[in-house]
Amino acid sequence: MTMKAIDYSLYMVTDIASVYRRGLLASVEAAVAGGVTVVQFRTDGGSKRELYETGLALRDLLRRPGVPLIVNDHVDLALALDADGVHVGQGDLPAEVVRRLIGKEKILGLSTSNLEQVGAVDATVVDYIGIGPVFPTQSKRNAPPDIGVDGLAALAARAPVPCVGIGGITIERAAAVYAAGVTGIAVVSALSYADDAGEAARALRAAQGKAKGKA
Amino acid sequence: MTMKAIDYSLYMVTDIASVYRRGLLASVEAAVAGGVTVVQFRTDGGSKRELYETGLALRDLLRRPGVPLIVNDHVDLALALDADGVHVGQGDLPAEVVRRLIGKEKILGLSTSNLEQVGAVDATVVDYIGIGPVFPTQSKRNAPPDIGVDGLAALAARAPVPCVGIGGITIERAAAVYAAGVTGIAVVSALSYADDAGEAARALRAAQGKAKGKA
Repeated sequence: MTMKAIDYSLYMVTDIASVYRRGLLASVEAAVAGGVTVVQFRTDGGSKRELYETGLALRDLLRRPGVPLIVNDHVDLALALDADGVHVGQGDLPAEVVRRLIGKEKILGLSTSNLEQVGAVDATVVDYIGIGPVFPTQSKRNAPPDIGVDGLAALAARAPVPCVGIGGITIERAAAVYAAGVTGIAVVSALSYADDAGEAARALRAAQGKAKGKA
Repeated sequence: MTMKAIDYSLYMVTDIASVYRRGLLASVEAAVAGGVTVVQFRTDGGSKRELYETGLALRDLLRRPGVPLIVNDHVDLALALDADGVHVGQGDLPAEVVRRLIGKEKILGLSTSNLEQVGAVDATVVDYIGIGPVFPTQSKRNAPPDIGVDGLAALAARAPVPCVGIGGITIERAAAVYAAGVTGIAVVSALSYADDAGEAARALRAAQGKAKGKA
């Protein structure tokens, strides 16, 4: 468990083609300026060497604003980059094994999509969970069925650690997701494919304010 | 650099489908009884969790005979299994980064296929190199062009660390490969797809004896 206080409010996940995408760094930089609080480097493509090179650039970009960099899936890459944390899924190495590899200080996130998985989360091992997909999503292959805002609210209420809703979250839907009782929202396409990632991030943060206003 | 004396004479590489293959453990056990001296767990398929489960079984199998287990590509998996080493390619994390992650004691192997790559090997970081493909191979996707026995001999002569020839090595071709001046031979299909892996291993070791007899 990390001892740092992490702000999970607006969690940006890079798109799967990000290792090849021109302008990745510029869009992340704009998104961070717009209010993104955590960045996850996710990709399904590229050699480990390419991931490493892109990851180094991302890490350097995020050090100054102090935004945590979390690496998806690849624990070795997270260690190689000295990233702030790693995010794994149910099919990856078991969370307790990952914790042993990364040590006590780094952030460990875990994807969950049902009550059994949320119930199995060990809060002494895992720092936060992703819950989803909330809505249908094209940005992740082989995703489980979407759970909707009500399903998210039910799981978030049982989460023993901070949680972020993920999957198909757009600017329009963001306020409803925040209102479901999550710590934050994780956004892929709505930031990575935005014409102006900074503006998109500000709109998403505004949705958080709106949800809080209602609560 | 590991301080252990590793016998690279007959280096078995599991086939890419091994994580799904019934009988994997039995064939590895038979191959070890027949004279295999190192086993590399290589696979292109399966979730990290499946690799971990299969890897644990392989590790337990190899502990008793004291045969080193080397994990291909996945440094995190090698650490999770507490394997004896890891083998990476030119497109993986840089060797010096991998060495930092695995510590001083574990074995680090690197794939090479030309003079530039062999010349760039840092003997203070890398324990051994694979050189190949010697012959055309179906068991590795996107392999570089095959270098032949003469090409292997030329590279082996420049290797600053122990080297194993790899790629399309059969029982029939083994003696010629050993005679090229390598420390050992790495074999995929000729062991993994053998009807009797023990017998195949014994035949490969006999080829080593034959090559030595000639030298």
